[in-house]
Amino acid sequence: MDNVIAIIPAAGISKRMGAGVDKQLLSLCGQAVLERSIRAVLAAKSVDGVILVVKPGEEPFFLSWSERFDGMVKAIVTGGAQRQESVRNGLSAVPDDADVVVVHDGARPLISPQLVNDVVGAARVRGAATLGVPVKDTVKKTGQDNQVIETVPRDKLWLVQTPQAFQVNVIKDAHRWAQQHGCHGTDDASLVEAYGSPVTMVYGSYENIKVTTPEDMILAEALLKAK
Amino acid sequence: MDNVIAIIPAAGISKRMGAGVDKQLLSLCGQAVLERSIRAVLAAKSVDGVILVVKPGEEPFFLSWSERFDGMVKAIVTGGAQRQESVRNGLSAVPDDADVVVVHDGARPLISPQLVNDVVGAARVRGAATLGVPVKDTVKKTGQDNQVIETVPRDKLWLVQTPQAFQVNVIKDAHRWAQQHGCHGTDDASLVEAYGSPVTMVYGSYENIKVTTPEDMILAEALLKAK
Repeated sequence: MDNVIAIIPAAGISKRMGAGVDKQLLSLCGQAVLERSIRAVLAAKSVDGVILVVKPGEEPFFLSWSERFDGMVKAIVTGGAQRQESVRNGLSAVPDDADVVVVHDGARPLISPQLVNDVVGAARVRGAATLGVPVKDTVKKTGQDNQVIETVPRDKLWLVQTPQAFQVNVIKDAHRWAQQHGCHGTDDASLVEAYGSPVTMVYGSYENIKVTTPEDMILAEALLKAK
Repeated sequence: MDNVIAIIPAAGISKRMGAGVDKQLLSLCGQAVLERSIRAVLAAKSVDGVILVVKPGEEPFFLSWSERFDGMVKAIVTGGAQRQESVRNGLSAVPDDADVVVVHDGARPLISPQLVNDVVGAARVRGAATLGVPVKDTVKKTGQDNQVIETVPRDKLWLVQTPQAFQVNVIKDAHRWAQQHGCHGTDDASLVEAYGSPVTMVYGSYENIKVTTPEDMILAEALLKAK
């Protein structure tokens, strides 16, 4: 049977959230942002376990913290300086019998299990998939001195979210290739694209926000309460 | 002295908000979205009056409704089939002695007076200015069958907001030119760009959301309460 492992990078400290605060451990309606993100991913029937990537030195804390997930956190891995390195470290802990790898931000607590299943399903068929939502706003590009140089056609333009999902060989090959070629991306799917493998866009949700500022916490709380 | 008039298109009915509901008259913490948008613009010291553009047939309602603004609503104008036509109709009611025209969505109630002043100030100096916020998310473009064809560099990419502000001759010329050439844009600044006049980007706020879905109402309420 299919084995699906989710890598959750939780090594980032938000500089925007305020000094020294790990945004992912902030309480959101009584439960840490990170805990909500992990529980949401584990609530998806397609997902069999989680690998948590944490900051160097925080492994002991998270080892005991993750006991609350009843053995579903399969490994605690030491993160790197960049998110890309953290995911790569997480990949090294993916068991040999895994078929699909899901990567999900620890700071996206509002993801629905259904959307996790959707993106996993798409990756099974197509090799790689990412969640995203169509751009609703007018988009402009600026040049020097904040002068507008173009209104970019927004048709077919998407704001990318996580989870992203990949057949395990696709994501491992892409990360290896990216490391060898010094290729950097703001997400994992872009490494797969640069490597030359197809990526499918799956319709996400505007509610699936990334909690990176104090305002985001307010929004996330309001969305949670409205559920 | 400078005379600054704000045009507020309020002719849109949100199809996303639910059948038959004018989103701009929905109550947001006890005050209609549109009323909040108007009051926020009028709270800016740079703004001398408002022209309200409404749906055909709704002029009588808004004529009495607008009495609450103590004479600061200078005209009620009949809107068109598209937003662009509504703004054009609004322009025809701008008094001859006006120097700067501000266009602000009736569905953006969270704009701060300071940001209105910022964009007006930029338009005075540069001719035309729009508010916007840098794109934070990874952006991808899809082709056929939702296949990703590109991760678009997000550097220098902005999500455009209102208010936008213009020297009065600039916006009038651009709208006239656009009408003559059958040019359509998702915002007014894009008509100025197409006409060939410079537009400056002014740093807006992520809180300045456009209320177009029930979820947006939840977010707007949460942001208002947190203020």
